[in-house]
Amino acid sequence: MIDPTVKIGKNLKIGSNVVIEDSVTIGNDVVIGHNVVIKKDTFIGNNVSISDATTIGKYPSSNNKMARKPSLSLQPLVIGDHVTIGSNSVLYRDTIICSGVFIGDLASVREKVMIGKESIIGRNAIVENNTMIGERVTIQTSSYVTADMIIEDDVFIGPCFSSSNDKYMGKGNYTHQGPVLKKGCKIGNNATLLPGIIIGEKAIVGAGAVVTKDVSENSIVVGNPSKSINA
Amino acid sequence: MIDPTVKIGKNLKIGSNVVIEDSVTIGNDVVIGHNVVIKKDTFIGNNVSISDATTIGKYPSSNNKMARKPSLSLQPLVIGDHVTIGSNSVLYRDTIICSGVFIGDLASVREKVMIGKESIIGRNAIVENNTMIGERVTIQTSSYVTADMIIEDDVFIGPCFSSSNDKYMGKGNYTHQGPVLKKGCKIGNNATLLPGIIIGEKAIVGAGAVVTKDVSENSIVVGNPSKSINA
Amino acid sequence: MIDPTVKIGKNLKIGSNVVIEDSVTIGNDVVIGHNVVIKKDTFIGNNVSISDATTIGKYPSSNNKMARKPSLSLQPLVIGDHVTIGSNSVLYRDTIICSGVFIGDLASVREKVMIGKESIIGRNAIVENNTMIGERVTIQTSSYVTADMIIEDDVFIGPCFSSSNDKYMGKGNYTHQGPVLKKGCKIGNNATLLPGIIIGEKAIVGAGAVVTKDVSENSIVVGNPSKSINA
Repeated sequence: MIDPTVKIGKNLKIGSNVVIEDSVTIGNDVVIGHNVVIKKDTFIGNNVSISDATTIGKYPSSNNKMARKPSLSLQPLVIGDHVTIGSNSVLYRDTIICSGVFIGDLASVREKVMIGKESIIGRNAIVENNTMIGERVTIQTSSYVTADMIIEDDVFIGPCFSSSNDKYMGKGNYTHQGPVLKKGCKIGNNATLLPGIIIGEKAIVGAGAVVTKDVSENSIVVGNPSKSINA
Repeated sequence: MIDPTVKIGKNLKIGSNVVIEDSVTIGNDVVIGHNVVIKKDTFIGNNVSISDATTIGKYPSSNNKMARKPSLSLQPLVIGDHVTIGSNSVLYRDTIICSGVFIGDLASVREKVMIGKESIIGRNAIVENNTMIGERVTIQTSSYVTADMIIEDDVFIGPCFSSSNDKYMGKGNYTHQGPVLKKGCKIGNNATLLPGIIIGEKAIVGAGAVVTKDVSENSIVVGNPSKSINA
Repeated sequence: MIDPTVKIGKNLKIGSNVVIEDSVTIGNDVVIGHNVVIKKDTFIGNNVSISDATTIGKYPSSNNKMARKPSLSLQPLVIGDHVTIGSNSVLYRDTIICSGVFIGDLASVREKVMIGKESIIGRNAIVENNTMIGERVTIQTSSYVTADMIIEDDVFIGPCFSSSNDKYMGKGNYTHQGPVLKKGCKIGNNATLLPGIIIGEKAIVGAGAVVTKDVSENSIVVGNPSKSINA
């Protein structure tokens, strides 16, 4: 049932109805739940845990209307040691998930993403393609991290955060740029960031704020449109 | 294993653990991923792709508290040619998905919905029942399209859009009406539309706007409550 | 295939590829869809319906960075009579779902939650741990119910609601407290509640409101920050 090109380490604990495609590599002491699908070429480190009904290593797809076509030459998905992945989640190829990362249930991470050590991607959170996430970052439940975004180390994002990267909303002929969240900034729940916005180091964006301009370091902004409330 | 009432075209590529219920029709050159469930009577056109762990053709259900009970006589789900459906998604019966449509991962589309040609339903987006979506519409990731909504051709909806159709919030004895989005209008990310709001042709609703009144054609509104910023 | 410690009542209707772990109890007249995973010790009452690809009875997990570690001694998940659970959902251990509750597709309910009789948890809605939900409560699609929250009887929450429980956003050394929603209050779609906010009996929070202070009973608040519009 398992293809001879699959390499499996010691002490694999595996559930029922698991599908492992060809050329997959699995490290030592890995736990795989029921109904998990591991697509071809995926690399899984040691002490990784993947819960039920999750699909990892998916190729992107598109339709005629979509501006950006998926690349045909994508690298495998690489999952570092001690990573924990929830149930019913979908992870794409050509992404690197560093050691100690936690990804919740019903989450999705696209291609060409890097997630740094010990970061948390909450349940039902979505991370789009081409996004860099630093170390010890928290992205809470149901947050939306757009494509082409940069999130530096130690950033905290509350639940239901929304971001976008397309100033002209589908007009095309334009370089998309998601927000940039500098080291240690904090974003409240259900805050909205416009394309290309820069949030400075240790700045705080209040819950429900709609951020239309860059926020300077250490400042606090709230409201719609958001304004500084620093003394 | 496959029921004799199932009709399958040429060149089917099918994954492991797929369940195909009775009276399903599948066209030519279809790709079905692992752990997919195709409920009874579903009609799938040619060159359709359905990714892993997706369920299509589901009957609606309810509990005692719900005002609207599901109809007992629902038509089958019909999926046109060249449609692409993501992983871990749920599509209902009595809905028509026209040719070239793209539906992302972790998305859901209810019964009595029509999705026009080449439209895009983003990942984790939800489309409720009784909603009409035109052609070349984009509904981005994690957006919520309420029931009884009309979305005309070429509308663009950014990520995390929210709508509702129930002015009296659960009081009942009232005709529900979702928003109406006229041809070519654009809605920014995390915008909120109240029940029955009409957004005019080519109007623009800013990111994070809360729209409490109709918006006239070609105008631009922002803020909470949203106001026009046209000259 | 089924463990001898599993107890099954009369008239079970069960789909393909279902996994039932040890010490599960299933009542009479239960319907279980395809690809469902029922984790160990789960108790399911009579006349329960569970749709395809749902996982129930999951143990919580965590990584090094997470403040709250899952308890090692969790009770089983208990599902009362006449409960309906959708497709592709994830329910945790040590939670009680009372009779007549409806849980939609792609939803998730964490550990140490109580959901009262006939309440509705919408599709793609998330309920975090340690949260009490009363009877006849409606929580609509894609809403986010944070941890340590109290929702009394007959509360109505529109779609895309957002809440949080952590005033210092990840700083730790602090007792988390989610909002408290008193009997019969109504919350509009995409409203944002800050940690510990109390919404009084029969109060109404408008769509898109950002609630930063307690709301008194019977009052109506809108805007960002929200203000009363009572006469």
